[in-house]
Amino acid sequence: MSQDNRLEKTNRINLLFAFYERLLTEKQQTFLKYYFHDDFSLGEIAAEFEISRQAVYEHIKRAEQTLENYEAKLELLQRHESRMQSIRELEALSFDDKLPEETRRTLGVLSEKLQALE
Amino acid sequence: MSQDNRLEKTNRINLLFAFYERLLTEKQQTFLKYYFHDDFSLGEIAAEFEISRQAVYEHIKRAEQTLENYEAKLELLQRHESRMQSIRELEALSFDDKLPEETRRTLGVLSEKLQALE
Repeated sequence: MSQDNRLEKTNRINLLFAFYERLLTEKQQTFLKYYFHDDFSLGEIAAEFEISRQAVYEHIKRAEQTLENYEAKLELLQRHESRMQSIRELEALSFDDKLPEETRRTLGVLSEKLQALE
Repeated sequence: MSQDNRLEKTNRINLLFAFYERLLTEKQQTFLKYYFHDDFSLGEIAAEFEISRQAVYEHIKRAEQTLENYEAKLELLQRHESRMQSIRELEALSFDDKLPEETRRTLGVLSEKLQALE
């Protein structure tokens, strides 16, 4: 995998992890965190947990697949990204000085509330 | 259970079902639909599938529990309801005739886009 593809994949897994973390087993959560979030190598994780490099690799592969399966069913990441586009437009509107001060304040509050739910 | 509580519970299960349907087994999906959505009795479902009334009851109990477990972990229904409050405020603002026509149109489009993602 190229450096760019690897980075893109790491980003995607980290995002999916944020949405579906609570649906993974404790072991899956731990290994994904070490590998994608903290950037440990397979060998380092294997040493840390005293299991084979191959076993770590398989745990991580399976956890990635589980995340992608949940996303295929629930599309939480995809919906999040679509919502964020509208929320950013709303936020931009709250800085539009052609609008009444009160409206801008209301739009600011609404965009913050929506953002906080993401 | 009182009539009101029963209605409230039916509404809640129907809502949870809308969010988590794809995470249930086919059998769970079928029984929940018959019972909560189409208002069949346990006896009617038992007759339809040629299993005992008790077996239907247990499938439905377990499916309800599964839905509540997913909600406890992902809170999709709760987040949906919080977002809907802000979306409705946004929609109301799009009808505010003290605002410029163009702004109202933009707010209308944004509230529709956000609503469509719910």
